[in-house]
Amino acid sequence: MKIKVAVLGATGYAALELLRILHRHPSVEVVAATSRENTNRLDEIHPSLTGWYSISCENLGPKDLATRGVDAVFSCLPHTATAAVAPELLELGMKVVDFGADYRLNDAAVFNKWYNVTHPDPERLPKTPYGLPELFRDAIRGASLVANPGCYPTSAILPLAPLLKGGYVASDEIIIDSKSGVSGAGRKPSMKTLYPECNESIAAYGVGTHRHTPEIEEVLTTASGRATSVIFTPHLTPMDRGILTTAYARQTKEASEAEIIAYLRDFYKNEPFAQVVDALPTTKDVIHTNRCHMTARVVKGRVITISAIDNLIKGAAGAAVQNFNLIYGLEETTALL
Amino acid sequence: MKIKVAVLGATGYAALELLRILHRHPSVEVVAATSRENTNRLDEIHPSLTGWYSISCENLGPKDLATRGVDAVFSCLPHTATAAVAPELLELGMKVVDFGADYRLNDAAVFNKWYNVTHPDPERLPKTPYGLPELFRDAIRGASLVANPGCYPTSAILPLAPLLKGGYVASDEIIIDSKSGVSGAGRKPSMKTLYPECNESIAAYGVGTHRHTPEIEEVLTTASGRATSVIFTPHLTPMDRGILTTAYARQTKEASEAEIIAYLRDFYKNEPFAQVVDALPTTKDVIHTNRCHMTARVVKGRVITISAIDNLIKGAAGAAVQNFNLIYGLEETTALL
Amino acid sequence: MKIKVAVLGATGYAALELLRILHRHPSVEVVAATSRENTNRLDEIHPSLTGWYSISCENLGPKDLATRGVDAVFSCLPHTATAAVAPELLELGMKVVDFGADYRLNDAAVFNKWYNVTHPDPERLPKTPYGLPELFRDAIRGASLVANPGCYPTSAILPLAPLLKGGYVASDEIIIDSKSGVSGAGRKPSMKTLYPECNESIAAYGVGTHRHTPEIEEVLTTASGRATSVIFTPHLTPMDRGILTTAYARQTKEASEAEIIAYLRDFYKNEPFAQVVDALPTTKDVIHTNRCHMTARVVKGRVITISAIDNLIKGAAGAAVQNFNLIYGLEETTALL
Amino acid sequence: MKIKVAVLGATGYAALELLRILHRHPSVEVVAATSRENTNRLDEIHPSLTGWYSISCENLGPKDLATRGVDAVFSCLPHTATAAVAPELLELGMKVVDFGADYRLNDAAVFNKWYNVTHPDPERLPKTPYGLPELFRDAIRGASLVANPGCYPTSAILPLAPLLKGGYVASDEIIIDSKSGVSGAGRKPSMKTLYPECNESIAAYGVGTHRHTPEIEEVLTTASGRATSVIFTPHLTPMDRGILTTAYARQTKEASEAEIIAYLRDFYKNEPFAQVVDALPTTKDVIHTNRCHMTARVVKGRVITISAIDNLIKGAAGAAVQNFNLIYGLEETTALL
Repeated sequence: MKIKVAVLGATGYAALELLRILHRHPSVEVVAATSRENTNRLDEIHPSLTGWYSISCENLGPKDLATRGVDAVFSCLPHTATAAVAPELLELGMKVVDFGADYRLNDAAVFNKWYNVTHPDPERLPKTPYGLPELFRDAIRGASLVANPGCYPTSAILPLAPLLKGGYVASDEIIIDSKSGVSGAGRKPSMKTLYPECNESIAAYGVGTHRHTPEIEEVLTTASGRATSVIFTPHLTPMDRGILTTAYARQTKEASEAEIIAYLRDFYKNEPFAQVVDALPTTKDVIHTNRCHMTARVVKGRVITISAIDNLIKGAAGAAVQNFNLIYGLEETTALL
Repeated sequence: MKIKVAVLGATGYAALELLRILHRHPSVEVVAATSRENTNRLDEIHPSLTGWYSISCENLGPKDLATRGVDAVFSCLPHTATAAVAPELLELGMKVVDFGADYRLNDAAVFNKWYNVTHPDPERLPKTPYGLPELFRDAIRGASLVANPGCYPTSAILPLAPLLKGGYVASDEIIIDSKSGVSGAGRKPSMKTLYPECNESIAAYGVGTHRHTPEIEEVLTTASGRATSVIFTPHLTPMDRGILTTAYARQTKEASEAEIIAYLRDFYKNEPFAQVVDALPTTKDVIHTNRCHMTARVVKGRVITISAIDNLIKGAAGAAVQNFNLIYGLEETTALL
Repeated sequence: MKIKVAVLGATGYAALELLRILHRHPSVEVVAATSRENTNRLDEIHPSLTGWYSISCENLGPKDLATRGVDAVFSCLPHTATAAVAPELLELGMKVVDFGADYRLNDAAVFNKWYNVTHPDPERLPKTPYGLPELFRDAIRGASLVANPGCYPTSAILPLAPLLKGGYVASDEIIIDSKSGVSGAGRKPSMKTLYPECNESIAAYGVGTHRHTPEIEEVLTTASGRATSVIFTPHLTPMDRGILTTAYARQTKEASEAEIIAYLRDFYKNEPFAQVVDALPTTKDVIHTNRCHMTARVVKGRVITISAIDNLIKGAAGAAVQNFNLIYGLEETTALL
Repeated sequence: MKIKVAVLGATGYAALELLRILHRHPSVEVVAATSRENTNRLDEIHPSLTGWYSISCENLGPKDLATRGVDAVFSCLPHTATAAVAPELLELGMKVVDFGADYRLNDAAVFNKWYNVTHPDPERLPKTPYGLPELFRDAIRGASLVANPGCYPTSAILPLAPLLKGGYVASDEIIIDSKSGVSGAGRKPSMKTLYPECNESIAAYGVGTHRHTPEIEEVLTTASGRATSVIFTPHLTPMDRGILTTAYARQTKEASEAEIIAYLRDFYKNEPFAQVVDALPTTKDVIHTNRCHMTARVVKGRVITISAIDNLIKGAAGAAVQNFNLIYGLEETTALL
């Protein structure tokens, strides 16, 4: 018998990737898709799904989902919207994987400050596992609610966490310079992401103010046990998808480039979705996959890590299914190869 | 003394190109820029103009423009908006170059049908020259009002008009398959032209219903003296700018490919902005210029013309300045090389 | 026990897509990959395969492959190279799916003329099924050798064959205007496909001379039983992958647009990889899938078909695996959803 | 009477931009273009020049150029090739603007180490002005030989030099993360810059080893009077042209973001081609112009500068003409607006 799944907020790009992955998932049946306004069929909203899904978007609340027999919910709702319904969903016995930021941080005060809101469900924050299985697999396994990581944090944390943990780099003054494809900005008409505005152009944005900053800092701190501070600069890059993160950290332990790469490779040796490579990774190597490619270089006393992911898959929908598989005790790679 | 110029509807892409060209124009001073809603400085609206223009957009009517001493108006307003003010502008003694469709057709009934409106100034339609100097230079010279051609029509008419005129091809069943960059869709947030929607993708649109169809037919008919009918299919192509038009017309006069190319080359031999080439043109050869590259091939009884322009320059702002130069008796190529 | 597979000519884009698909195929083990010059590991040649394949390219002949116990060969070799080895491969008991043109035509004389060579294995041409399962499934099932279709022909034949068969359109004067992504030009350094040459630019090429012309004509003739003639114009489009084909055929049977779409939908109603849609298809809807989206419009006595495929999947590697599945009597959609 | 100009190595992208600019230059006549192998007409090599140049490329040495009456030479030759002919060109009385690296550094030993060659003309290195007029205008004025800056150095030096000079930032540990369009890699077929390899992908390259590193360090040291050390990481970005440089320097003088921006604005207040802006610059704002847009942000004790240029214009051909204008005492902005 299949696990009955609902997708909340099914009109965006991450939801589309999720629906593609779920279509291949042998243990899943998608029984509902929600939207507050859109009532079209899924294949009208996402023509690439033609023939795969016959359902339409509906405006459904937790009780409606329970009535449909939904077992698990993937929520692609905007921030605070998931936390507004998660308590009821969980009480009704559903599992929840949240694509948004609502449960990523431990401290509601930090959330409230960076997101300029009041968190609707603050108690659950410190108890909710951060859905990066490569670092927090045990906590995710069997959880009821998982906070899917942000796309930039995934790309930055995967190479940096082991180096911090191993004492290879200093935990202050880490500079993270990230370049993301435009799908990261979402599927809403906007001047900034109008094709002729951002095509053939690259630009920084949110310098010093991007909300993924506290997430990166907190998770690196948790994962390494050392209070970590970062400067994070995202750039809008003229491509659909993919994030390349170049991070600069001061080296604190004598080690050659080869030794650092070997250490990372060993750290991730059993991971199906974290590949340590020798050559410099490109986003093209990983787009349309759930994998992170990463490597390191040593230059003038700095360890430079370069890592690449697909922001919509390893940075969103793929990670969500990876977490879902862990929650249900399924093979972690199901539908993700 | 410089000609005082106003740009109506100065926030879009064609207006930006126009302002770039006018900055180089030795006989022009831009004294006003209008917008109904936007009151920002021109360099806030178009950061690439930083340091070049100190004026802001204002909501100005014909009398305001007259008060400013405006001599000539470039109108980038949406359709019917120019025809609503042109009579008064002309009466106040200003010259008008209209980027829009309002004065391109001769017959207001055809306009009303295709644009689904009532034309505000129908009498002026048959008297207004169509601003394609390569075919209608004499009528443009010294005119007070000129209708700048549509971008697709420019690309299609330049190669086809001579062939029709010369009797080389049949005037019915001409198939025009055009590919345009995304800037042609304008500078307004929209789902269709959101970067991740149209990047890495090509699609037809407006099949059989695009409003440039009657314009192409009427101008080809006028230019060739033969009633011409076309099927026109535009395609949205993942690039900022440029139009490539591939047109298929039945050959009606014995002539080799070389003879047809030689005929076209002779036809345009004195034109600074119409280049007949031997190799197949690319849009990259002409973007950021006011030129049309074109060639012809003969395949199985069809003459295939391939032509390329920049939709924003030869298809809009460049042609407008070319017309402006003719109106004022200036060197036609001023600011356009 | 898995089917042991070899990939001949494993360094290009179609081979990469094939290796990605085969990695997901539960009945396949890739035991060899060949190249005449490249002896690198597959994941050095294609970094996106990191961790999936440990083998390297080797220069292997038919006997070497037999020694390795190869059951089936996917050949991505250049034209005539497959026909030079296919007879021996078949004699040694291997199945062969040829990505190239060697066995697509029935008549070696036509092949020799268009490819300017002498076909090494002319007798086998008329006997080899054309690997478009939607039209020739029965012939493919159980065959030993299958000729995978060209990418442009797949996009043109799928919508046109049913219309010709049903008598909806005339079989002469069909104009096929196709737009392809750059991966179709192969993975070899070349001036034409250098990024700054073809980015932000569209151009026609091979007007009247492209080798897919006789293939489209022959297959349409076979599929419809009516001698068909086409004018085919391909265009190089600034995107990685995808083909959009806009075809113009004279309507010969009274039928509304809705009736024609309904006819096509009925024709392909059981096909997993041919979707008849109402809205105009985009290449983005089908890239990274094995599907063809198609629709039709009626304009001034012409039926215009618009169809979209991924040139590397439905136009190459996906179709090859679809054919492989049919050859072995496996579920046709295996590894392709 | 016009200045007779030759372009050495006229087949590449920077040469094409140069030829476009020179076509607009009222004081220049291009009398020769050279190539070692290519003997085609300029408009065959660069179709966008159709109708503008009738000359062909020739393999010409210094004496041939003198015979043609050449007054000034723009050299787009590969490194060491200019230094091999510059002494003779200068002796024959010609002015030389070198696009390459041959005369950018002061110390031949540093050149030899980073370029892995023996410099053919080491004595002239310390005497040759570095062609960044915003910092070295006096030395360029009236010089016979000018070393045009590298594209990355221009983008990095313009914002950083004033901050170093003013004592705002530390001169060690400056991290420079640059993103360049693909035209920077030149116009030669190569696997790395094949469209389907680098499109829809971003990657770092030359981490810690790029040859612009010593150039940036030396010029910043000269301009600021403080020994400067940088880590420089270039990235290949999927766009034709443009460089965005994000640089991170430790703040050493108390100053707000607004004060730093005001300082920069004052520093460049008379410069036609260096614009200090408040908003974050994009490469699109400056491509196809000779301008550098730059701004600054202060984050956690770091001054972050963000600057944008067109690598082919302000980073090559435009700067070359700016230098040429200074050499000849012409208006510095001639042909560059």
